Amino acid sequence: MFEARLTQGKILKQILEALKDLVLDANIDCSEEGLSIQAMDSSHVSLCAVALRSDGFDHFRCDRNISLGFNSANLGKILKCADNTDIITLKAEDSADNLTLMFESEKNDRVSDFELKLMDIDADHLGIPDTEYKTTISMPSGEFQRIIRDLQVLGDTCTIAVNKDGVRFSVSGDLGTGNVLVHATSGVDKEEDSAVTIDMEEPVELTFALRYLNFFTKATSLGPTVVISMSPDVPVVVEYPIEQIGHIKYYLAPKIDDEAEE
Amino acid sequence: MFEARLTQGKILKQILEALKDLVLDANIDCSEEGLSIQAMDSSHVSLCAVALRSDGFDHFRCDRNISLGFNSANLGKILKCADNTDIITLKAEDSADNLTLMFESEKNDRVSDFELKLMDIDADHLGIPDTEYKTTISMPSGEFQRIIRDLQVLGDTCTIAVNKDGVRFSVSGDLGTGNVLVHATSGVDKEEDSAVTIDMEEPVELTFALRYLNFFTKATSLGPTVVISMSPDVPVVVEYPIEQIGHIKYYLAPKIDDEAEE
Amino acid sequence: MFEARLTQGKILKQILEALKDLVLDANIDCSEEGLSIQAMDSSHVSLCAVALRSDGFDHFRCDRNISLGFNSANLGKILKCADNTDIITLKAEDSADNLTLMFESEKNDRVSDFELKLMDIDADHLGIPDTEYKTTISMPSGEFQRIIRDLQVLGDTCTIAVNKDGVRFSVSGDLGTGNVLVHATSGVDKEEDSAVTIDMEEPVELTFALRYLNFFTKATSLGPTVVISMSPDVPVVVEYPIEQIGHIKYYLAPKIDDEAEE
Repeated sequence: MFEARLTQGKILKQILEALKDLVLDANIDCSEEGLSIQAMDSSHVSLCAVALRSDGFDHFRCDRNISLGFNSANLGKILKCADNTDIITLKAEDSADNLTLMFESEKNDRVSDFELKLMDIDADHLGIPDTEYKTTISMPSGEFQRIIRDLQVLGDTCTIAVNKDGVRFSVSGDLGTGNVLVHATSGVDKEEDSAVTIDMEEPVELTFALRYLNFFTKATSLGPTVVISMSPDVPVVVEYPIEQIGHIKYYLAPKIDDEAEE
Repeated sequence: MFEARLTQGKILKQILEALKDLVLDANIDCSEEGLSIQAMDSSHVSLCAVALRSDGFDHFRCDRNISLGFNSANLGKILKCADNTDIITLKAEDSADNLTLMFESEKNDRVSDFELKLMDIDADHLGIPDTEYKTTISMPSGEFQRIIRDLQVLGDTCTIAVNKDGVRFSVSGDLGTGNVLVHATSGVDKEEDSAVTIDMEEPVELTFALRYLNFFTKATSLGPTVVISMSPDVPVVVEYPIEQIGHIKYYLAPKIDDEAEE
Repeated sequence: MFEARLTQGKILKQILEALKDLVLDANIDCSEEGLSIQAMDSSHVSLCAVALRSDGFDHFRCDRNISLGFNSANLGKILKCADNTDIITLKAEDSADNLTLMFESEKNDRVSDFELKLMDIDADHLGIPDTEYKTTISMPSGEFQRIIRDLQVLGDTCTIAVNKDGVRFSVSGDLGTGNVLVHATSGVDKEEDSAVTIDMEEPVELTFALRYLNFFTKATSLGPTVVISMSPDVPVVVEYPIEQIGHIKYYLAPKIDDEAEE
């Protein structure tokens, strides 16, 4: 028996919005610790990992580890039927063919329940090594979304270069070139949601496909901040912390120089 | 000579919005009592009936009963040219080829007049028998619209089941099943626009094509409340009362069991 | 060396929005006096002329007259990357292949720079004779936009008739006819942005293609007022003044009677 109740049901809606354009099918892995989803995008270029800790739910019970295989378009359709203010409960039997989703309105005058047919999904759970990154940027998630969206008009790949003063996003294409420089926030404003902080051991410069960075920014509504961790020659991690419950992380390998200069 | 002036011209705009996706051509029947429109949808599955009492107009004169045949797309286009705050006057000669629509802005700095070419429309005016319904639900029109829209993601037909505790809307399809239960409002809140009240002689359960219920919800903006009346084996009536002037009613036959289980 | 800095960078964004559906390629002509753009639409039916005085910029330097040829779709894409509150600086070397656009955020925490590749554009600069118009209307730009948009549902050509009491916009088509009468504002309200004033030597009535009038209304966001100047048999001028810096003007020849009655 698995049962998880979340007053802020909106978070589940937003996670599906953040997944569904990137990931076709995936498993929700349920254990005593909480829920997790790990999936490659359909082109096997990027990896998406969601973790929601059991203590972030109002009620959480998972008698036995189970994997609930879902089609993200279908689960997304059902979650669209929940209001942003609804309380959402997920339920499944131990060997379930269905996931039950219950939506309760705030005032408790409407209760909806939906059954989603589950699927068997072969998924190798990738062990992601704990890496020390050479540089970690924290910046407003909306600002990151906007920069990625803007730069897409100019080209397909974006170079992210970090030094202690700031982050430079660069793109080059047929109609011209563009650079956006975001300064690290100084002094007293650092604590604010809108602060840009850079934790850097050494400068890093990597190049990525804008198409995937843009997919990642679908998670923007999950929180005010995005945390970008980079080291030379390893995948970037674009993390959206979800307050008091967990995070969604995206991994994307950098383009090697040949590609970047194409 | 027919002339009708309505300060709340917005009502006429909203009625056309509520008609135009369902009804192609129809007559406005004008008499001393007021205006009425009755028309089947283009597939002859549902019936739509509008009634606006003459005393709801600021000025109303109708010397002789006349029928003004209109194409609803065209009349809709012209009414889109009126502001929501405009005063609208309809005018026609006794044997008119044209309907004149005059739009006056609130501050009277703009006056528009449009002539719509009229059409001859053969329409059998159906006598709708006065029926006593076994159950009548009154609920917020926005809530009804939302439920119908949500359930469409799951299937094509919706079962509406009423008992004294509430109304259950159910749908079933390829990706799973869904139920929305709306509770009757208890006690003191009953007078509010957001109340759900159920007047029931016996429980009723009927199944309908969601496509048509969805068309009916185009009338949502006409008022805060929708009234749904049902008896076994007869068409449901979905009524949107329009404050101080009339109503728009939709009639739709239930699916018989064979169909519902297809 | 050319350099021009504008705190209200939004104006440049809005000018491109007002141009880009009408004009494919054009030159920005830079001189000590300021910037100007003059271009025919791609069908050579209407003319668009922008003028921005150097004293309207925060900083303006133009050592030598230069023409910067741009593709308006591409320049529009880059200007979309500027926020409405950004400060925009344009820069070009004397014999430049590129136009540099720099966008600084209000709080100076983000600086973007873009390079747009320039083009050689053959453009005969038309001398527009200074004409005395028989009638000049000043009216709210939003009201003009709305009338033009509304009347398009009825037909392709619009007659604008002015006398001292007001302006009548008329259109006629398959589904009927429409007239919008805008009254001149009387007395005390004349100073307001929402005033309609008519300066008239003699009544004028001219007919125009609504399609082009509609293109002109893309400039509506540039200011609260539009000024329409007409004389018999000469092109109308539709001018949007841009506060403290200049204007955008559109010229369109009237249809001759044969055409208008088609």
